[in-house]
Amino acid sequence: MAGNTFGKAFKVTTWGESHGAAIGVVVDGCPAGLELSEEDVQRELDKRAPGRSELATARREEDKVAILSGVFDGRTLGTPISMLIWNKDVDPSPYEALKNVARPGHADLPYFLKYGHRDWRGGGRASARETAARVAAGAVAKKLIRTYGIEVVAHVVEVGGVRARIEGLNFEEIRRNVEHNDVRCADLETAKEMRRVILKAKEEGDSVGGIVEVIAWNVPPGLGEPVFDKLDADLAKALMSIGAVKGVEVGAGFEAARLRGSEMNDEFYVERSEDGVRIRTKTNRAGGILGGISTGMPIICRIAVKPTPSIRKRQKSVDFVRLEEVELEIKGRHDPCICPRIAPVAEAMVAIVLADHLLRNKLARA
Amino acid sequence: MAGNTFGKAFKVTTWGESHGAAIGVVVDGCPAGLELSEEDVQRELDKRAPGRSELATARREEDKVAILSGVFDGRTLGTPISMLIWNKDVDPSPYEALKNVARPGHADLPYFLKYGHRDWRGGGRASARETAARVAAGAVAKKLIRTYGIEVVAHVVEVGGVRARIEGLNFEEIRRNVEHNDVRCADLETAKEMRRVILKAKEEGDSVGGIVEVIAWNVPPGLGEPVFDKLDADLAKALMSIGAVKGVEVGAGFEAARLRGSEMNDEFYVERSEDGVRIRTKTNRAGGILGGISTGMPIICRIAVKPTPSIRKRQKSVDFVRLEEVELEIKGRHDPCICPRIAPVAEAMVAIVLADHLLRNKLARA
Amino acid sequence: MAGNTFGKAFKVTTWGESHGAAIGVVVDGCPAGLELSEEDVQRELDKRAPGRSELATARREEDKVAILSGVFDGRTLGTPISMLIWNKDVDPSPYEALKNVARPGHADLPYFLKYGHRDWRGGGRASARETAARVAAGAVAKKLIRTYGIEVVAHVVEVGGVRARIEGLNFEEIRRNVEHNDVRCADLETAKEMRRVILKAKEEGDSVGGIVEVIAWNVPPGLGEPVFDKLDADLAKALMSIGAVKGVEVGAGFEAARLRGSEMNDEFYVERSEDGVRIRTKTNRAGGILGGISTGMPIICRIAVKPTPSIRKRQKSVDFVRLEEVELEIKGRHDPCICPRIAPVAEAMVAIVLADHLLRNKLARA
Amino acid sequence: MAGNTFGKAFKVTTWGESHGAAIGVVVDGCPAGLELSEEDVQRELDKRAPGRSELATARREEDKVAILSGVFDGRTLGTPISMLIWNKDVDPSPYEALKNVARPGHADLPYFLKYGHRDWRGGGRASARETAARVAAGAVAKKLIRTYGIEVVAHVVEVGGVRARIEGLNFEEIRRNVEHNDVRCADLETAKEMRRVILKAKEEGDSVGGIVEVIAWNVPPGLGEPVFDKLDADLAKALMSIGAVKGVEVGAGFEAARLRGSEMNDEFYVERSEDGVRIRTKTNRAGGILGGISTGMPIICRIAVKPTPSIRKRQKSVDFVRLEEVELEIKGRHDPCICPRIAPVAEAMVAIVLADHLLRNKLARA
Repeated sequence: MAGNTFGKAFKVTTWGESHGAAIGVVVDGCPAGLELSEEDVQRELDKRAPGRSELATARREEDKVAILSGVFDGRTLGTPISMLIWNKDVDPSPYEALKNVARPGHADLPYFLKYGHRDWRGGGRASARETAARVAAGAVAKKLIRTYGIEVVAHVVEVGGVRARIEGLNFEEIRRNVEHNDVRCADLETAKEMRRVILKAKEEGDSVGGIVEVIAWNVPPGLGEPVFDKLDADLAKALMSIGAVKGVEVGAGFEAARLRGSEMNDEFYVERSEDGVRIRTKTNRAGGILGGISTGMPIICRIAVKPTPSIRKRQKSVDFVRLEEVELEIKGRHDPCICPRIAPVAEAMVAIVLADHLLRNKLARA
Repeated sequence: MAGNTFGKAFKVTTWGESHGAAIGVVVDGCPAGLELSEEDVQRELDKRAPGRSELATARREEDKVAILSGVFDGRTLGTPISMLIWNKDVDPSPYEALKNVARPGHADLPYFLKYGHRDWRGGGRASARETAARVAAGAVAKKLIRTYGIEVVAHVVEVGGVRARIEGLNFEEIRRNVEHNDVRCADLETAKEMRRVILKAKEEGDSVGGIVEVIAWNVPPGLGEPVFDKLDADLAKALMSIGAVKGVEVGAGFEAARLRGSEMNDEFYVERSEDGVRIRTKTNRAGGILGGISTGMPIICRIAVKPTPSIRKRQKSVDFVRLEEVELEIKGRHDPCICPRIAPVAEAMVAIVLADHLLRNKLARA
Repeated sequence: MAGNTFGKAFKVTTWGESHGAAIGVVVDGCPAGLELSEEDVQRELDKRAPGRSELATARREEDKVAILSGVFDGRTLGTPISMLIWNKDVDPSPYEALKNVARPGHADLPYFLKYGHRDWRGGGRASARETAARVAAGAVAKKLIRTYGIEVVAHVVEVGGVRARIEGLNFEEIRRNVEHNDVRCADLETAKEMRRVILKAKEEGDSVGGIVEVIAWNVPPGLGEPVFDKLDADLAKALMSIGAVKGVEVGAGFEAARLRGSEMNDEFYVERSEDGVRIRTKTNRAGGILGGISTGMPIICRIAVKPTPSIRKRQKSVDFVRLEEVELEIKGRHDPCICPRIAPVAEAMVAIVLADHLLRNKLARA
Repeated sequence: MAGNTFGKAFKVTTWGESHGAAIGVVVDGCPAGLELSEEDVQRELDKRAPGRSELATARREEDKVAILSGVFDGRTLGTPISMLIWNKDVDPSPYEALKNVARPGHADLPYFLKYGHRDWRGGGRASARETAARVAAGAVAKKLIRTYGIEVVAHVVEVGGVRARIEGLNFEEIRRNVEHNDVRCADLETAKEMRRVILKAKEEGDSVGGIVEVIAWNVPPGLGEPVFDKLDADLAKALMSIGAVKGVEVGAGFEAARLRGSEMNDEFYVERSEDGVRIRTKTNRAGGILGGISTGMPIICRIAVKPTPSIRKRQKSVDFVRLEEVELEIKGRHDPCICPRIAPVAEAMVAIVLADHLLRNKLARA
């Protein structure tokens, strides 16, 4: 019983194999009347596209999206939005030699054991290429949540043990800075050091991991549904469903385990401004979510990204058809650090969760 | 659009407010023919029941479960299993004074902003009491996954900064040890220190957080569905949906962010034994999951649990009806550390995810 | 993969076997703030309750409902509404002799073949008793749709070949008349004849079928979702899911097959009144639905109800354990015509579909 | 909250507007390892394709399908199967003049009232063109159910009041005969009369309706889920979701309303053959389903199809923007009777329901 759809009101279904004819996505449940163009989607896809930096894989995909349905005269129809991206720079040859080999850290073996039959070319369905479809859907979600004033940004806060310093930066500065370096780090100085760490690993035929933070700004209170579809629960699922993510935390996250209640609790206060009266918290260790429902404070979550499993270094593994041990060297074209390209995907997934819950929350009161 | 159901094939719907008439759960999708008794469920509930240790709330609930449907002659019918627990030791009086006050770290305010109308008695639907229903459903899930040989255990690995040492322990030892101390820690020496830390916080009118690890043993390869319903994605959602959880990680988790690919990748090898030939990995930094699908290695995940927000210490907050700042002291009956009682809930949620995916995986091949 | 839940936004999950401890229902997705009391639900249940007419089974069930969650201070909380009805007049003895016999027209054999293990007492889960839970959920749905001015009535239009004449009656007259006779027929004269037909069949140890019509009044335009969750598609599913229903039609229904396009099409016109301008149709052969979406005209559908399969007359069948042919006479307590008691169930199901689509339609526009 | 997906285990999502760039479908949940080619799908599409008979619309669409994902080396991967059909013979000009006019019998007005913004070209999403995507998905479903020996056929049994006589025909004869006439009627003599009736209506600028029967052969017992996802309930939804369908019946259908229990009940008997022992019924008034679960007898259902609403004859209606009454003549290209082209769609929908329930039934027993 497959699981290629995310969301209950804003439903995203992706399809496609890395080296098949195309990849794509159907967004069902986007309300009618929203302005949407191919340019809106293309802009987001370009953030994730490969072949544009020495930090990323050399696979050259234009990743030009076509919107095939659901939009008429520049606005959505309330019907499914089907988007398609052709696979062009397809070269399965480096994968052929390894088609029965379980590449360490990859899903080859579990796919083989689960399905019996699999598309071994470039990871098939398990390829990171699938995330382009998520980014396309995320572009629609962003347009929708923006009508409520919500903005989302993802930025790389740690790479190979090097941490960014972002304490003084506000939301707009973070958004601006990430566009100015190919690591997508908001701390422009540390970004340079991160680049060096990544390129050094690449040179050595190895790879590094890191941490990406996602911030959602201007999220109204009330999003999230008790008890299983809590906002943080859906964020955790959305983010953990991205390949290479091994951990998700919200607000203080794992640090919360070491705090006392009196330190962890955010104190409420009343803020009176021109915009009216709002209840806010002085600190935001909750990360904008209490009891699974947004509080009105910014939503902050972080993901742990493992180092790219495809490395040039020699590794030991197994031919799962012959049941023999083998040695392998992975050629293909790979990112020495996946964090910069995971950031737009994380942004997309958070936008999709917020779009879904914005719609769902419309049904909370009679 | 509510979210009180978890699972797609093994579907769990909980209902009930903390101080309402009762709480309960309907399990839909449990196959027919499974042996199941009220004792099976009661045994699990007793692990979570309040009022049994000085580490836990003084609320005394027998938490006696009644199975009202879905079982006949000691075996499941394939029809919904409805289970009910009456609320008995109900005393809303300590909550009355705070009914319009946003208790820091609690969901009072978001519920009020979302619904307008809420049950303020003991947290209502947002109370940890809801998790008893999850444990009941988890008991059914455990019976089901046990027919495949799978076992699950949750144990407390860190409390208030004190870490357990569990390196030498095997699965059976962990299972046995957690039953021998009310912290549910597998390291019996450290458990004593954890007790002291918890009781000290209690004495000071404060609380502590910690980390709980869940291990699933004998999980066959192939569980989990690309691309959104990955096994780790569903585990992340299941665990993050438990109140007080602020982070989830699988395998190396956040540590993976600091490793290189050559360190993170688990090498495959062929194991030949009396049971036949199996492909295994020497290490298990993946935590038993690759590409969202189980590999056949043990599944290991950890959750960050925040300190109980209900503390006796004086706190500042807001009356959200009068929009005034107030000071509050929380009386009621609370756990100074929620980790020991979250462990059975985490166990239940992991069992439910595995039951759901075991069933779903039956449909993978034609 | 079980199917005990109906609806996507207003979700109804029923549980319980006919001769188990209890039956019940969980309604998830009802918005917060709706006035709701046990009396609201009881009033609807009383319409369906057995033992109140010589036309109905002699099983005496009080069918007293208890609301266990989701309501506080007389209003819904937005959390699951759990309702429970204890089974009291439980006498499985007449069923014991037939526990391995496939009663003709009943689900004994398919349940046995599907599940292996079944509750043979009074039909178990397949019993019409399950529909009491639907009526309880329908009572909540009715309260919700009434806040939009929508009313639903079901009335018996044909029994054993005898047809009611209802051409001159308006909606209010139909609603009033059905409460004045135990056939629930709006044509009070024909109702008497229907009674005679039913009692004659009963006397002869036989049963009769009939047709029930459901009218939904004041339904706003726009309900129903392209392309699979059309309003008529969901009504068809909802009504066909009631045991004993063998056909569903909307508007002109099967008669439409014999009309020409020029006869079938309803002409639109503009109606100007004190309430404003509305587009209406002169006729309503569409039954209030075009392209699966409500038009603003009354919704009209009809169901074909088969004669009660439980008859006293001697029948031939099979013992499915011994695989032998047997003769049987069904004792137990049965309705000689199920139409009068199906009417409230059909009403409930239509109300549930409308409640679900009213909520869903809130998400149609950005 | 949109509804473009059908099925819970075998999930079909269609997308596309009649005069947009393309239409398509994503099938999620088809097991891995099933043989599937574009020819398999094309063969089914050709049955429904327009422009091939004087009974059908003159719109010429090749309806060439491309499978873009989910198939590798001629077999399914267990991943989503995305299929695409370009719209080629697109001519919106005849629709422009009517873009604000509610064509009688069409969904223009409800779409406008629901969404505000709509694609008026050729009915947009509400066009019968959408059903090509269903037929493509149905082709996959047919391949899947055929691995269990199940076959499905739809045939036209009534047109414009003219009824086919099919009593003597067996399943194979019906399947063969429908391919030999463009009415898709199994009674070859009556087919000629039906043709005359259709062409006469066409000549007069009018249209006729009819009845289509679907038979599913070799369906094993046990398919269908209590209580809402009964097999007949899902069939009713699937079939009623096809545009122009106004009624659905199973087995004796509406005729059951006029029978007595002793006439309606099918007697069980034991059949012993070379294939083993089976329990069957002498008659099949149940249409192969009892209590919502298949019995092992053939499944028989019928749908009432209204006459095509697009007729050349002058009609009165309303301009819903100007709120004025207008007269209209519909030009475009239309089928004078939709029954022959609905038959393959009905076949596809029944195949999809059976595929879904075959998979779901794998989870019935522990």
